[in-house]
Amino acid sequence: MQLPNPQPLDDIQVLAFDVFGTVVDWHGSIAREMAANYPHVDSHAFAQAWRAGYQPAMRRVMTGELPWTLIDDLHRMILDRILPDFGLAHLAEAERARLNRLWHRLDAWPDVVEGLTRLKRRFVICTLSNGNLNLLTRLSKRAGLPWDCILSAEVFRTYKPDPRTYGGVASTFGVRPEQVMLVAAHHDDLAAARGCGLRSAYIERPWEFGTRQAKDVSPQLGNELHAENFVVLAARLGC
Amino acid sequence: MQLPNPQPLDDIQVLAFDVFGTVVDWHGSIAREMAANYPHVDSHAFAQAWRAGYQPAMRRVMTGELPWTLIDDLHRMILDRILPDFGLAHLAEAERARLNRLWHRLDAWPDVVEGLTRLKRRFVICTLSNGNLNLLTRLSKRAGLPWDCILSAEVFRTYKPDPRTYGGVASTFGVRPEQVMLVAAHHDDLAAARGCGLRSAYIERPWEFGTRQAKDVSPQLGNELHAENFVVLAARLGC
Repeated sequence: MQLPNPQPLDDIQVLAFDVFGTVVDWHGSIAREMAANYPHVDSHAFAQAWRAGYQPAMRRVMTGELPWTLIDDLHRMILDRILPDFGLAHLAEAERARLNRLWHRLDAWPDVVEGLTRLKRRFVICTLSNGNLNLLTRLSKRAGLPWDCILSAEVFRTYKPDPRTYGGVASTFGVRPEQVMLVAAHHDDLAAARGCGLRSAYIERPWEFGTRQAKDVSPQLGNELHAENFVVLAARLGC
Repeated sequence: MQLPNPQPLDDIQVLAFDVFGTVVDWHGSIAREMAANYPHVDSHAFAQAWRAGYQPAMRRVMTGELPWTLIDDLHRMILDRILPDFGLAHLAEAERARLNRLWHRLDAWPDVVEGLTRLKRRFVICTLSNGNLNLLTRLSKRAGLPWDCILSAEVFRTYKPDPRTYGGVASTFGVRPEQVMLVAAHHDDLAAARGCGLRSAYIERPWEFGTRQAKDVSPQLGNELHAENFVVLAARLGC
């Protein structure tokens, strides 16, 4: 769908991608691994609980209650807190560490590799995720994601939606903010990017929270583009 | 050549690559473009002069004489200084900016893409260069270099040989220093890496300074590996 009054997009040089939910299916990946290894656990509820701790944990860092912390370490703090709720309080250190690395093994949505490969022909493609560099690198390597560069909150030492992350993409690549487009499945992320002068493209990920809980993916005003997936986005951008 | 008393290299997870001279032929690339566009200039001497300003410029930053500065900006300062020596003082701003981006268009040595592609199957492969992220990203995109991650002095906000750069690779990827191997064509870079507990592999680049000025590429003690090029390195590491 093309939204009304689009601005010309000819001068975009860089596409920056949100990762969790936009590029990778965190819910399905976590639920599948939990169902395979811990069949007595409600794998859907477990995935939801783990992810639900994410924004509050980042807020504790941003308010100064916690020092600067990588997402791998926040994921581990949340994991340790929720394990007892799922009858897994007995898990030993090695098993917890292995489970935490599940975030390094998330599967990409099926359109991602083809879409990125096409978009890469014309644009610099990079991540802009709160995930740390190690997580993003290992996840991308496993899934075969052809980024030109991996940018992370870790590089800017602050999480999205801090303006320094969105503005940081433009300054890193020596371009004006309007020459960068954020691609994400979350309207709040895209609105924050637009607030910094970036362009925005919304991607529909109706099953981000699993098939039990459909997500509203209807278009909202403000986004320059709205696409069903990365292959459609590539076509829309002439790739 | 295998050096004496090699340590077992089985536990290496990450290969970090120096870029200028090791991955890309800065001298040949600059000399070719200068010869094509400014035929009256001694293109060899021009390439040498531009690169010769690099270490002194970084020292001015590290001593605090200059604030933190990206390599693109140091390259431009050096360029502005040397242009009059080559009869190019008349170049206008746009032409100087275009010339400075020559560092984004350096050609890789012919073995690099094949070697990296093979090494990537088994190791996390990343850059560790004083070049800034924009320079490294655009150079790598143009040359088709399949990095898993681009790390730069810019991420650590200090240049090699500061220990925070070498140690930073290990901490970024959550591994011990001895699980990282620096690959470089410069013994001083490799020695500094070893001082931080990293492994080291020397790559012969006899024409780094052009064919008029052969470089001594004989093995030195201390390096775990010494290879003619990246394809030989891949074979040596079982890829």
